[in-house]
Formats: sequence, structure tokens, C-alpha cells
Amino acid sequence: MLGGSASHFSISASYFTDVRLVAVVGGDFGAEERAVFDRHEVDTSDLEVILDGKTFRWFGKYEYDLNVAHTLDTHLNVFAGFEPKLSERSKNSRLVFLGNIQPDLQRGVREQVPNAELVALDTMNLWIDTTRESLQKTIEVVDLLIVNDAEARQISEEPNLIKAARKILSWGPKTLIVKRGEYGAAMFTKEEYFAIPAYPLESVFDPTGAGDTFAGGLMGYLASQEKLDEGALRRAMIFGSVMASFNVEEFGTERVQRLTHDEINQRFREFKRFTHFEEIPFERVREVSGSKFQVSG
Amino acid sequence: MLGGSASHFSISASYFTDVRLVAVVGGDFGAEERAVFDRHEVDTSDLEVILDGKTFRWFGKYEYDLNVAHTLDTHLNVFAGFEPKLSERSKNSRLVFLGNIQPDLQRGVREQVPNAELVALDTMNLWIDTTRESLQKTIEVVDLLIVNDAEARQISEEPNLIKAARKILSWGPKTLIVKRGEYGAAMFTKEEYFAIPAYPLESVFDPTGAGDTFAGGLMGYLASQEKLDEGALRRAMIFGSVMASFNVEEFGTERVQRLTHDEINQRFREFKRFTHFEEIPFERVREVSGSKFQVSG
Repeated sequence: MLGGSASHFSISASYFTDVRLVAVVGGDFGAEERAVFDRHEVDTSDLEVILDGKTFRWFGKYEYDLNVAHTLDTHLNVFAGFEPKLSERSKNSRLVFLGNIQPDLQRGVREQVPNAELVALDTMNLWIDTTRESLQKTIEVVDLLIVNDAEARQISEEPNLIKAARKILSWGPKTLIVKRGEYGAAMFTKEEYFAIPAYPLESVFDPTGAGDTFAGGLMGYLASQEKLDEGALRRAMIFGSVMASFNVEEFGTERVQRLTHDEINQRFREFKRFTHFEEIPFERVREVSGSKFQVSG
Repeated sequence: MLGGSASHFSISASYFTDVRLVAVVGGDFGAEERAVFDRHEVDTSDLEVILDGKTFRWFGKYEYDLNVAHTLDTHLNVFAGFEPKLSERSKNSRLVFLGNIQPDLQRGVREQVPNAELVALDTMNLWIDTTRESLQKTIEVVDLLIVNDAEARQISEEPNLIKAARKILSWGPKTLIVKRGEYGAAMFTKEEYFAIPAYPLESVFDPTGAGDTFAGGLMGYLASQEKLDEGALRRAMIFGSVMASFNVEEFGTERVQRLTHDEINQRFREFKRFTHFEEIPFERVREVSGSKFQVSG
């Protein structure tokens, strides 16, 4: 089925905004795959097809509780010779998501979008292990970093996530979003902290692509908003989580391909129900010989 | 310093309600320890001291990220011959928390409080491993089970937490609260789901007792409320988390011993800030030749 980071991201984002995809794929990317993008009005004119190449593939296994993915093998394939060149239309994008590729290449794309209002970055343990310096340089020039919590700890070399976040934010990004699998996600800025649970699911068929689907929903929702303020970012986290929750219910992008806005908004509202509590501070009331008096507020 | 499950629980709960402690301690429990309980007005008249015994001790180590505690050794000591007998006052308690002891003993206490409005239960991997049947019988006769997520999965033999919760609730308890360390806590009832993050802390000195402190704040707050409804339970989870966040900042019960209600309420309000988002569903707006129209709601 249609999988892959770019597919998960683009199809998820397409529910909220118009998506232009800049990517390289191998000759194994065919008419069927393109039809899915067309149906979701994903602009693939910047998609580069290398006929004698094979699409990048990730092989891994998940832990018992599906929270931890171990990379068994990463086939760079067509990425080995990839140098993304953006069309004029793509260069004028208001929001840009730098998918998980080698950090030098990501920085090359970032330099082509100097006027973007928000540039977000994804990465993975492979690049932290092998290209740490380049990765840090790339982090320095983006607005938003989206990683999982093991990656945030590994990038910053801080076991405590709050310290890890502070360190990463000191390098340049205004915002850090940390994905936590079944535990939800957290967002850090210099002034604010925001954290949400995951949508509770009884059956997770395939967690592959959940991170990309999350990022797609998040970036797509942000693109639909005039102001990229704290409130928009918070709602974007919820929409990203909603999209990810659909993604894991079936294999590949199958579930996310046939969503309605009503289904999306219904889960958004459920998130409010899952997280709401009344802000009533504690007041101690003691009974003293029949009458009640309050001790402090 | 004063540690131990009962100390953490009682001191935490004492900020919200009057606490009566039924427990057994060894001869190593002295005047200093009793003074701390007195200062927090914890009623220790049901405290049994076995002079030639030693207090129950837990030895463990924590993982790198402090989320997972491994039990290295458990010294039952005085608990080996413990058969809790409740005074008339204790038998009339409106809320009862059955601390983490052998499940037969917990059931023995539960039978002594048939009129309690809410009976909560704590347990640990030791009892799941060694006394599974008795533990399940005890779970069947309580209203609220409070465990961590590994324990919830282990008790139910379900890797998926939502399925684990459904199974545990089918045995009898109306409510399951799952502690998740730095990821916060979740609450399950047959109809509702509620989840909160942990209070973000840059330095965690000692996570020991966080679970007991959480349970103390939770039960203490509930005891202060006239109605034990969903709203009260949700706020109780926040107050439990607030107390736990103070607990881990210093060793033993040191930080929690010198709290004010203002400090507690301040963190309660911060939790609202960390979790709030506006409930504005997505509306797709597209620009078509200069004018905008909306596609679905």
C-alpha cells in the first residue's frame, strides 16, 4: 500500500490546506500512488522520479507496547543522490516542512525559502548518530522542531526532557514539539508548555507513519490559520493527534485517505472532553463544634 | 529521612482532609517520625508498633529517564505477621485507601469498612507475580484501583492500555487511575476517559514516594468534596499530580512537609495553563478567484 513519510504527511495535511510535495521517488512509484495524491489535490509537480532507483525504505520492529520503534535497516536508495530544487511556487510557500532526510539537504531546502513564515523540521536517530553537527546547524535555522522524546533527549544529551527542551530552544527554534506515542505530545516554547494525551485506541494495527501523519495534520492546520500564535499551535497539536489516531487504525494511509471533516472535528471535540477540568482551587473547610470555617484559599 | 508509603500518602492527604493512619511499623519508627505525623494532624492511634520488628523496606533502582523503577529487593519485615484491626473511628471512614500490602490483608480491611463511600486500592508487581488470584478478588471489591501503566498491563494481561482498562473495570471497580511517571496520569471509567500530563520539572531528585504522594493528594482532595463525581475525580487527579510534583523535588517527604495551600493552588492553576486549548473546530476556507468559500464544517 501507499506508505512512506511524504505520503503520510501530504495526505494528512491535504485535509486542511493545499499541499505541494517536493520529493524524490524510485521507479517503484507508479500510477496508483500518483492517483492517490491527485485525489487529495497534492501538487506533485516538484516530485522527482528516478526510474532506475528504488524508493527510500525503513525496516524496523516495534516493542510490545508499540511505543518504541527500533530501526533495523534504512535503505537510502534514491536519496543518496538527492539535491532538492524548489520551483518558484514552492519557494513562495508560507509554511515549509522539512521531512526526515539528511540534514545538509534539509538546510539546502531551508535556504531556498528565506521568506517562509514557519519552517518545521523532522529528523531521526540515524542523523543524530551520524551527522550530529550538521543536524544542529539545521536546527539553528528552523522555527519548529518535531521529534519524539528519545530523539529530543539524544539530540540535547539531556535525560530530563524539560532541560532537553530548554537546550534545544536555546539553539534557535521558537518551538519544540515532542511526540510521545501512546502518551501523546508536548510543546515547548520559551514561555509556554502544553501537553496532550494521545487519542485512546483499543486497537493499533500499524503505528508506522503516525509521526508523519501527526506532522501533516499539524502543519496543514497551521497553514489554514491566519495567525500562527500559541492558540493556533495548540489546536494544531490536537488536529495532528487526531490525524495520527486515524492513521494507526489501518495499514499505510488507508484510513486517512477516506476521512471526512466531520470525523476529524468529532475527535477534536473528544480531545476537549478527555482533557477538560474545572479550575476550582482547593479551599480547606473544617468543622469546628458544628460550624464550618475555612482555612486559607 | 521519613519515607515509606504511609508517610508519603498521609502527609500529602493531610493538606486536604483529616487523615487516620492504620499501619504497622517496626521499632525503628521513633519520636521524630511521630512528630511529623503530629504536625500534620495525622491520627496515628491505629498505628501498631512492633518493637522488635523492622519497618517494611523497598530497594530499587531507577532507569536513566526515571520513568521505570526496578524492584531489587523487598523486605516484608513487620508485615509478615500483620493483621490490620480497625478502630470504630476508622471503620466509619467515608473514604479508605488500601495501601500496597498483601491483597488478602487488603481484603481483610475492606471487609471492615462496608459503609465507606469510596475504597481505593494500591498494589505492585510483587503481588501481581505472587498472589494474582487474591489480588483479582480484592480488585473486585473496591471502587477505585490506582496503579502504574506497566502494572495495569500486567494485571489484565493486555498490552493495550485501553483494553487493559476495560478488562479491569469489568471486574468491578468503577474507576481505574493509571500513573505514568513523567507522562502524567490517565483515568478510565466505563463512560469517560481523562488524561493529564505531569507537572514539568527540570530536576527530579528522588522519584521514590511519588505514587503514594499522588494517591494521598487525590484521596485527600476527594475527601474534601461533598460529591465524588467525575468533576471531583478529575480535579483530584490534578491535585494528586501537584503533590507528586513537589514530592520529587527533594528527598523523602521533605518538600511536601512544608507546603502551603497557595503553593498547591498555584500549581493547580498552572495545570490548567498547560492543558487548555480553545474548542474551535476546523473549517476549510478556500480562495477561489479572489473570493473565499467554505467547504464543510
